[in-house]
Amino acid sequence: MVGSMHTANETQILTEPVARLIEEFSRLPGIGPKTASRLTFFMLRAPDEAARSLAEALIALKQQVHFCARCYFIAQGELCVVCTSPARDQRLICVVEEPLDVVAIERTGVFRGLYHVLHGRIAPLEGMNREDIYFDELLDRVRTEPVEEVILATNPNLEGEATAFHLQRALAPLGVRITRLARGLPTGGDLEWADPGTLSSALEGRREL
Amino acid sequence: MVGSMHTANETQILTEPVARLIEEFSRLPGIGPKTASRLTFFMLRAPDEAARSLAEALIALKQQVHFCARCYFIAQGELCVVCTSPARDQRLICVVEEPLDVVAIERTGVFRGLYHVLHGRIAPLEGMNREDIYFDELLDRVRTEPVEEVILATNPNLEGEATAFHLQRALAPLGVRITRLARGLPTGGDLEWADPGTLSSALEGRREL
Repeated sequence: MVGSMHTANETQILTEPVARLIEEFSRLPGIGPKTASRLTFFMLRAPDEAARSLAEALIALKQQVHFCARCYFIAQGELCVVCTSPARDQRLICVVEEPLDVVAIERTGVFRGLYHVLHGRIAPLEGMNREDIYFDELLDRVRTEPVEEVILATNPNLEGEATAFHLQRALAPLGVRITRLARGLPTGGDLEWADPGTLSSALEGRREL
Repeated sequence: MVGSMHTANETQILTEPVARLIEEFSRLPGIGPKTASRLTFFMLRAPDEAARSLAEALIALKQQVHFCARCYFIAQGELCVVCTSPARDQRLICVVEEPLDVVAIERTGVFRGLYHVLHGRIAPLEGMNREDIYFDELLDRVRTEPVEEVILATNPNLEGEATAFHLQRALAPLGVRITRLARGLPTGGDLEWADPGTLSSALEGRREL
């Protein structure tokens, strides 16, 4: 795509640095050429400080942040804050697809175990297979760490369910307890608007009061 | 907003560089906290090269690009490529709101005069007045340059029309020809779907065949 977005004439009128920043912004996911232009002209008008500050944050991110060597969540050292905390229950691993899922679960404040971030899910149609995510690394952890329960917290959609199914099959021989997050009505939701899948799950998973 | 987007706990779990880049992205127009998170995690996974390349483009933009000292379009030197071109007709100035409007007009290839970029429009409700845009700078140019015609190419909406009205009133005493871009049906458009305003303009501006 480099150099192909703007014709030579347009690059000349836009100037090379403007055409280049538009192209850089366009490479970000969900940002098309129009938004990229808007962002570039915003930057042009913004104080130098705004551009420098964003540039520095980008560099700092790549220099200082990596993935945890144990659970693959984000970390500044070798291990993340969850893995290095002595307060966390080492017998419990919650498996999620993405780092932001860890942030969402931490926000609840109710989970005190460890995590394992797969960095994706099994989706063969998109070319995502078991070896493209941290799948076997989880099995290694279950074999070598004092794990008693693995909570499969992949997304409640087709790919997430398929990933959970594969994980469950692979984990079963290791003699660990395997659980899945409950499905049901979302808190604050409206029964009238619940989709049939959610409502079926809520019925099947009903609890004695 | 700095430091207020994420609680101390969330910054700890996200790490400071991640929280910081999310905040930096959130300051861009049209980018909310969710998109900012998505962009940050995209950057985290992208090769170092991607982040460096965007950072360098941001710095290059601010170091190398400024606004033309004459027409306020973007320029790498003191004057822009249009103002420095000996081929452009110095008697014609096309007044636009934004630099991207110049790019749009240049794309047509039919305009051979100069430009004047206002960098905004008069919109008193948004606190944009005559002194907040390059309004008086246009009057100075008309007084000192060999200008014969000023084409008012502000947007065909309420604020653009108001700005054109103010410009026309200020330019009239200077004895220059003042024109406005034609209003009518867009090429490739469908009469059935034309809004009443466009259709009225097309009727009023009808031409003998």
